[in-house]
Amino acid sequence: MIINCAAYENGHKLADISVEEIPAYISRPACFVWIALKDPETSELEKMQQVFGLHELAVEDAQHGHQRPKIEEYGESLFVVLHMIEFAGDELVVGETEIFVGKQYVLSVRRQAQRGFVEVRQRCEREPDLMKHGTGYVLYALMDAVVDRYFPILDALETNLERIEEQIFANQSSRANIEDLYELKRKLTVLKHATEPLIEAITRLFGGRVPQLCVSLQDYFRDVYDHLIRLNQSIDSLRDMVVTAISVNLSLISIQENEITKRLGSYAALITVPTLIAGIYGMNFHNMPELDSPLGYPLALITMAVIDLYLFIRFRKAGWL
Amino acid sequence: MIINCAAYENGHKLADISVEEIPAYISRPACFVWIALKDPETSELEKMQQVFGLHELAVEDAQHGHQRPKIEEYGESLFVVLHMIEFAGDELVVGETEIFVGKQYVLSVRRQAQRGFVEVRQRCEREPDLMKHGTGYVLYALMDAVVDRYFPILDALETNLERIEEQIFANQSSRANIEDLYELKRKLTVLKHATEPLIEAITRLFGGRVPQLCVSLQDYFRDVYDHLIRLNQSIDSLRDMVVTAISVNLSLISIQENEITKRLGSYAALITVPTLIAGIYGMNFHNMPELDSPLGYPLALITMAVIDLYLFIRFRKAGWL
Amino acid sequence: MIINCAAYENGHKLADISVEEIPAYISRPACFVWIALKDPETSELEKMQQVFGLHELAVEDAQHGHQRPKIEEYGESLFVVLHMIEFAGDELVVGETEIFVGKQYVLSVRRQAQRGFVEVRQRCEREPDLMKHGTGYVLYALMDAVVDRYFPILDALETNLERIEEQIFANQSSRANIEDLYELKRKLTVLKHATEPLIEAITRLFGGRVPQLCVSLQDYFRDVYDHLIRLNQSIDSLRDMVVTAISVNLSLISIQENEITKRLGSYAALITVPTLIAGIYGMNFHNMPELDSPLGYPLALITMAVIDLYLFIRFRKAGWL
Amino acid sequence: MIINCAAYENGHKLADISVEEIPAYISRPACFVWIALKDPETSELEKMQQVFGLHELAVEDAQHGHQRPKIEEYGESLFVVLHMIEFAGDELVVGETEIFVGKQYVLSVRRQAQRGFVEVRQRCEREPDLMKHGTGYVLYALMDAVVDRYFPILDALETNLERIEEQIFANQSSRANIEDLYELKRKLTVLKHATEPLIEAITRLFGGRVPQLCVSLQDYFRDVYDHLIRLNQSIDSLRDMVVTAISVNLSLISIQENEITKRLGSYAALITVPTLIAGIYGMNFHNMPELDSPLGYPLALITMAVIDLYLFIRFRKAGWL
Amino acid sequence: MIINCAAYENGHKLADISVEEIPAYISRPACFVWIALKDPETSELEKMQQVFGLHELAVEDAQHGHQRPKIEEYGESLFVVLHMIEFAGDELVVGETEIFVGKQYVLSVRRQAQRGFVEVRQRCEREPDLMKHGTGYVLYALMDAVVDRYFPILDALETNLERIEEQIFANQSSRANIEDLYELKRKLTVLKHATEPLIEAITRLFGGRVPQLCVSLQDYFRDVYDHLIRLNQSIDSLRDMVVTAISVNLSLISIQENEITKRLGSYAALITVPTLIAGIYGMNFHNMPELDSPLGYPLALITMAVIDLYLFIRFRKAGWL
Repeated sequence: MIINCAAYENGHKLADISVEEIPAYISRPACFVWIALKDPETSELEKMQQVFGLHELAVEDAQHGHQRPKIEEYGESLFVVLHMIEFAGDELVVGETEIFVGKQYVLSVRRQAQRGFVEVRQRCEREPDLMKHGTGYVLYALMDAVVDRYFPILDALETNLERIEEQIFANQSSRANIEDLYELKRKLTVLKHATEPLIEAITRLFGGRVPQLCVSLQDYFRDVYDHLIRLNQSIDSLRDMVVTAISVNLSLISIQENEITKRLGSYAALITVPTLIAGIYGMNFHNMPELDSPLGYPLALITMAVIDLYLFIRFRKAGWL
Repeated sequence: MIINCAAYENGHKLADISVEEIPAYISRPACFVWIALKDPETSELEKMQQVFGLHELAVEDAQHGHQRPKIEEYGESLFVVLHMIEFAGDELVVGETEIFVGKQYVLSVRRQAQRGFVEVRQRCEREPDLMKHGTGYVLYALMDAVVDRYFPILDALETNLERIEEQIFANQSSRANIEDLYELKRKLTVLKHATEPLIEAITRLFGGRVPQLCVSLQDYFRDVYDHLIRLNQSIDSLRDMVVTAISVNLSLISIQENEITKRLGSYAALITVPTLIAGIYGMNFHNMPELDSPLGYPLALITMAVIDLYLFIRFRKAGWL
Repeated sequence: MIINCAAYENGHKLADISVEEIPAYISRPACFVWIALKDPETSELEKMQQVFGLHELAVEDAQHGHQRPKIEEYGESLFVVLHMIEFAGDELVVGETEIFVGKQYVLSVRRQAQRGFVEVRQRCEREPDLMKHGTGYVLYALMDAVVDRYFPILDALETNLERIEEQIFANQSSRANIEDLYELKRKLTVLKHATEPLIEAITRLFGGRVPQLCVSLQDYFRDVYDHLIRLNQSIDSLRDMVVTAISVNLSLISIQENEITKRLGSYAALITVPTLIAGIYGMNFHNMPELDSPLGYPLALITMAVIDLYLFIRFRKAGWL
Repeated sequence: MIINCAAYENGHKLADISVEEIPAYISRPACFVWIALKDPETSELEKMQQVFGLHELAVEDAQHGHQRPKIEEYGESLFVVLHMIEFAGDELVVGETEIFVGKQYVLSVRRQAQRGFVEVRQRCEREPDLMKHGTGYVLYALMDAVVDRYFPILDALETNLERIEEQIFANQSSRANIEDLYELKRKLTVLKHATEPLIEAITRLFGGRVPQLCVSLQDYFRDVYDHLIRLNQSIDSLRDMVVTAISVNLSLISIQENEITKRLGSYAALITVPTLIAGIYGMNFHNMPELDSPLGYPLALITMAVIDLYLFIRFRKAGWL
Repeated sequence: MIINCAAYENGHKLADISVEEIPAYISRPACFVWIALKDPETSELEKMQQVFGLHELAVEDAQHGHQRPKIEEYGESLFVVLHMIEFAGDELVVGETEIFVGKQYVLSVRRQAQRGFVEVRQRCEREPDLMKHGTGYVLYALMDAVVDRYFPILDALETNLERIEEQIFANQSSRANIEDLYELKRKLTVLKHATEPLIEAITRLFGGRVPQLCVSLQDYFRDVYDHLIRLNQSIDSLRDMVVTAISVNLSLISIQENEITKRLGSYAALITVPTLIAGIYGMNFHNMPELDSPLGYPLALITMAVIDLYLFIRFRKAGWL
């Protein structure tokens, strides 16, 4: 489905155009077309392949989907795959954006992602000075937008960890915490799969030898790179903390076990010691002077109570109860 | 055993030929021979060595089998070793494919693998435009097929992990889960041994200096490389999650232990407290007024029941029962 | 808020100047301006951008804050981001310093950090020989100051670990220790985020190709690099020891559990064995000669005491009590 | 002790010679001497140093022994250190082979290793075509032999792990298993110390700039490299599985603990519940109608039995017994 | 404090000289001065700075101490920092040696280290052939001596690990073992801090571009490098084994726990079962035929004994006792 299709020249939008008009516009050397597709059908992609002369392997990748993030050069043009990560309730959904960039066209294909790039296009159209850089700048704007959208995801996961940490240290080493930590690790892996492959790929767009399209935009792509490095470092730290949290949690569970064992042992003592005393006075010896004493019974009960009180105080002091 | 042997020219199949006809065909400069062997005997390989002039060390490797995946250049020709991984019931079986590629021949040797490359050959023969690239394209087609066959294996292992995860978090921390996790890790290692060595090797077939055979096919080999990187990244993530799952499982076992201890302690209290009361009234003191009361016995029983009920409710509330 | 603004020439301070005077001073080729801002408003930064011709992306970064430490070249000028780490009570607070350096200006922007650079300025002004190197030297002095301030933080965390270690090995495997270890690991991560990105960045200021501003100061920047490497190595070792401490702690908790179990078992034996004896003499057989003996009762008590004494001594010897 | 000393020319053995004859033979340009020493005394090594002009540092290393595997160039000649690993009963013994190679000599020094290189020499002498390559080929043959001898060691350790795995999963989490896993890890470390340093060293014998002696033998040294990589990868996987096996074992021990606790708890219930009933009917209340009933006693016993039977069946169903 | 100061020419010692004489000697082009300081005061270092023209930053580092090992070039001269590690009782003490090397001087500054370099000087003076290489050789001799002194430290730590291993597997999973393992890991970290930074640094003294002073001594510095690599590899393996030992120890503690639980459970059964029997015969039913039988009491006792014997044998067989 075509979301948007417009032609630009010297940084300014010429017009919203139809697919049929594209060849006319890209025959003008200073003009480029920016077209956005959403979950396109095979036929739509094949049409694009014809119009812009896209490379067979790139189109195949775009059709199959489920690519890893990458930036590939096919001659003068670039093929970029980005992951779009969105929350659907509590779950992360991984969509995909493929971007084909040539000197005179930008074709973005969005798959399984709710949020589009209308606002990116609007901002670009408000900055004709930058749009003058051509399709390379559009590529930058799209990549910058996708990468910026990773940050709120990361923040949500960070908040998630903090919540789990609080629960763990608040003496609640429940199954739920462990499951949450495991789930968090998986989500961080999803995010890492989106950012890490891109880091190495994007270094080819600044410094050293750079594709023609990006030559004047190196500072901009370095900025995206910088955001990716920051994301990646935070993801790694979070993952590391999750692993630490799991092992810390295990220690806390073991401490809890010790506490339970101590408490149970203490209560057992409070019950079994008087049981022993009762057992002694339940013996059937004929010659047990205490049994005949009128105070025998109350004294026995008092003895039991006193011993239990003494034990209770000692256990309390020792922190067993 | 020879599975298939055919001669190709300008992207088209000339004929199925016999081994004896090979020299005649490869005397024609634009012609190449594609021959497929399965579990060949030493003599068959030696004959091939003679016919195509294969390098002694490569033939030795192919005879011994049990090589790691690799791509080696011997002069103008290439020697490629790939692992073929197949499920046999629940187990992974590692077969091997060795491919000798020269300007005028492709020799594939398959060992201990059920599934062959007939479909690859058929697809190649349907695409004469691509077959025109010569033996390099056949090599690509074979490698692409082998690498594509790793994906369903990986998917199966991923499903496997999900199943184990479900069981773990469904409170079933059984021995079987742990054994399954260990087994899964071993299978991932098998898959990793197939993909990882290939990644570094295949980079020599695109970018930088490239063997003559692959010069015009760099985009294609980069595509295979890309699949390998994706596989490898997924394998690494899965391995990481398996390790996390093992440690998470340990935490859950420890939590279970705490729960068992609490429950046992609770039940012990429900039994030992009335035992103490019974013990007290089993004492033989002469002066125990309760014993003479006609309501003594039922009151004692009721006391026991009330205390147990109270304890039971408290344990329930505390989540110990 | 402008903290300080002065002009320098030939290593000597000319005068404290106002923002309006800056253009006049930087029109003198040998002169440079060093201006320090604290938590500036957008308008202040925009004014600076106009006066010094700062790059848009750098200014944007400085406005947003929350950058990772980095050193970026924009043409002839440098943009440096440093983390300022300070203790606020027990917590680490991460502030930020952005430094814009051109041939004729140094602009430092401090954010959320208590401690400024007045002393750095004073020391620089006392060393005109070194100030002759120009703005590059001021950059060095600022970076050196920031990096040197990491050391006391690291020392505090090291002392922290030693304190926790002592508590752990002093048989106090409490929840608090585990929480402290976790917290320590997080603080080390904060410190690592400040130092690690800087290491790679600063290598571009010495050795190989170096920005014009730093050419004569390579030995100085190598010195800062050296401090960073030392910091980073210490942080890594500390992090490693924290992880080891967590697992060592778990072992100690488990040993403690064994000790508790042994102790509880021993005490249980001391109670249940006499209970058994009492039970035996509580049986109602008619023919129990001991019951009729006048010494039966005291002998039974003595037997209980002797057995308990024997058990107690054995448990003591076995280290169970 | 000199084991063997012979002169070779054009790939053929000339004669077994004495040390005194060496100078005469190496004065013939196409001739080289291959001499094998075993646990030589200092004086023997010094003589060799004189005869062949060996570098002082290399001889020092050979005298001291306990070197790590390495390949060093001293001018035109090579000094190679290899580890010889042999089983002595259940233990691994690390011997050493130092090889000095010049254009006209190969000197191998074997230390603390049972198995020598007679078979290597014999095979070399059967292949004059390859021996024509000169001393470089002898070096290859020796290295290839040493590296090939690592494989049976690795296989033995792999079998070892499989045996331990079987025992672990067969519910036998004994101390012996853990000790075996630890011992296995140590042996793998020994093997790793033999292979890993060699990998980096041997890359200097093929590809890129290569010592004169090895120029025509690059494919051969790459083959040794390939074996080393395979060894190293298998060692790493084994080490990884050992670590996983240790943690899996811990989980199984904890599960076992849960099972023991459950079983003990169940049996305790089977004993303490009838004890409570017995306690109740041991109370001395005057008004306990059951006591007077002639069926009281058997009914009490039957009640105990029925309750225990019920409990037993429930515990069985719950898998506690 | 000046320990030693002598002038050398053509490999031979000229004379022990005073600081005042240094300028005269270093005015002779072929002559160099070797001076050794121990814990010098600031004034002494400043004098040296004047005499030899040392770089300010290097002197600052030498004054502050607590540097990491490094090799820095200041123009034609070198500044080397080495860690001196010595045992003080059971603890490791880290001293430091800074070496300033120029074409005509070697200045070594030793701090907090007991053992000096007198023997190094003596050996150098006995080898005039090597001393002819000039100050570079003295640097080599000093570095070689420092690195060689790490080996006995490493051996001691290796012996330490072996002792702990023995204790662990000899069923003594005590707190002391865990504390020792932790302490060992810390000591290995200290040693690693001494060797690891040096490895990268020393590669600049051989191969590739090399400082003028070391040009003819590359084989020697490669030898030191080789020792460092060996040390580092052993340290890494030891550290890895310590981590494994900690986790193995945890498994053994858990096994011990299982054994304790089993033993306690067995003993509990031996006590509670006869208690139940006693309880039954302590019931007050009027109609209990056994009570009236003259053999009732001894039979009850025998029953208890027989059941306990039976249980004891079963527990023994099951390995619970």
